[in-house]
Amino acid sequence: MKNQQTDSLPSHPIGVFDSGVGGMTVMRALMERLPFEDIVYFGDTARVPYGVKSVATIQHFTEQIAHFLLEKQVKLLIIACNTMAAVAAETVRRVSPVPVLDVIDAGARNAVATTRSGNIGVIGTPTTVNSNAYARSIHALNPKARVYSQACPLFVPLVEEGWLDHPVTRLTAHEYLKPVFVEQIDTLVLGCTHYPLLKPMLADITGNRMLLVDSAVSMAEQTAQLLDEMGLANPQREAPDYQFYVTDIPLRFQTIGERFLGRSLNKLDMVQL
Amino acid sequence: MKNQQTDSLPSHPIGVFDSGVGGMTVMRALMERLPFEDIVYFGDTARVPYGVKSVATIQHFTEQIAHFLLEKQVKLLIIACNTMAAVAAETVRRVSPVPVLDVIDAGARNAVATTRSGNIGVIGTPTTVNSNAYARSIHALNPKARVYSQACPLFVPLVEEGWLDHPVTRLTAHEYLKPVFVEQIDTLVLGCTHYPLLKPMLADITGNRMLLVDSAVSMAEQTAQLLDEMGLANPQREAPDYQFYVTDIPLRFQTIGERFLGRSLNKLDMVQL
Repeated sequence: MKNQQTDSLPSHPIGVFDSGVGGMTVMRALMERLPFEDIVYFGDTARVPYGVKSVATIQHFTEQIAHFLLEKQVKLLIIACNTMAAVAAETVRRVSPVPVLDVIDAGARNAVATTRSGNIGVIGTPTTVNSNAYARSIHALNPKARVYSQACPLFVPLVEEGWLDHPVTRLTAHEYLKPVFVEQIDTLVLGCTHYPLLKPMLADITGNRMLLVDSAVSMAEQTAQLLDEMGLANPQREAPDYQFYVTDIPLRFQTIGERFLGRSLNKLDMVQL
Repeated sequence: MKNQQTDSLPSHPIGVFDSGVGGMTVMRALMERLPFEDIVYFGDTARVPYGVKSVATIQHFTEQIAHFLLEKQVKLLIIACNTMAAVAAETVRRVSPVPVLDVIDAGARNAVATTRSGNIGVIGTPTTVNSNAYARSIHALNPKARVYSQACPLFVPLVEEGWLDHPVTRLTAHEYLKPVFVEQIDTLVLGCTHYPLLKPMLADITGNRMLLVDSAVSMAEQTAQLLDEMGLANPQREAPDYQFYVTDIPLRFQTIGERFLGRSLNKLDMVQL
């Protein structure tokens, strides 16, 4: 870390983690919303995707990652992966001495603030949807809300293929969203960190019928608020430090990573857990 | 194993492994072709898919699996995963005291025997295609053959979604196969263990223009031949023993596994490597 002389908690980095590159949509939103914060990103690219694994395995992997980032002296942990947030957020909170924010809570808060009718749609991976975590978070904030969830397992591979506005992706989206559309929802939560890359196509398909809640943007907003309230905002006014750790660097990593981040990827290290 | 009294090598099981459930298409072809052989299957479901990982990581994981199966006293190792066969077959052969067969070699032999024009198409995951392993195996058998390869990264998630003959899958297949079709191939190798489930749809799209080489069937044929030549065929005439080991049992495992296997899944154990 840079601020060795003034090693107070606010000068410490934020820790962000995901099962792979998806969380870089959250990283990108944080970089834009909080341009003076140092950020350490962890992507478990050797074991991605988590959305198809069992709950016990996801909890075990998630705890390993949280320990890794806590050793990097982070002042805040952000669970940028909806699948981990859905089934392992409590596991992280149990082991973490610093505050823990997660994308599901952030997305749920934003959805409840956005909806007028109280009818909220949620799309995500099978594990996220089966966990029912969004419905629980939304109902904890507004018991009158009605939540309609739909798993969209093909959206992640479609995004990674780069088919962000391809006829195949549109046809897949129409197929997945058919049952959601009949429910008269006015708000649709993009409950997976890959989905913000499909936002232009989804906005086109859904038209003016509903608002799309981007959990990456919601997360950045919630983080800014928390840092402010807790006096944890970084006082530095120079260019921040961004460090990326991954468990594997596959062939297409650079391409996919930069597509998610919207800028070039520097300071990338491979580690084993 | 059952034949404790007659514990000679032919009575030992065959070891089959894959990064996940895909290799069960090979398992199924083996069960049908060699109905007296005991088989131990290993699927690395906690770390699947391998097709998007780096070569070093795939070699490391593959070696761990080979050691696990060798401890189970297998008489033969079958690499049922194209990605592992493409980049880690030599790693397995280096550590194995028993014969090692792999799906790429089996598919290449079948393709060379099938083609009339010498123009062969190969479809597979990005890692398999980038490795150029099919082209090398085919050219080693027939230096005059011309190989046209195409990565089809969305086929695996489409099969796992169960969209085996869905408009989205057809549109995706047309998109991927367009550059292959212009090459006047007469043989198309299904270079991924997931693809045999798409065979009816692919046969419909390709019509009578080409023959499809199913590497699972090719593998079973090659195994039968090797067991016969080496005097390793199991002499038992009772129902064989099928044991499945996986590193994770996710929610949809039973459904997907049984779809691949074409029958119910018994004797399933979860292990850690």
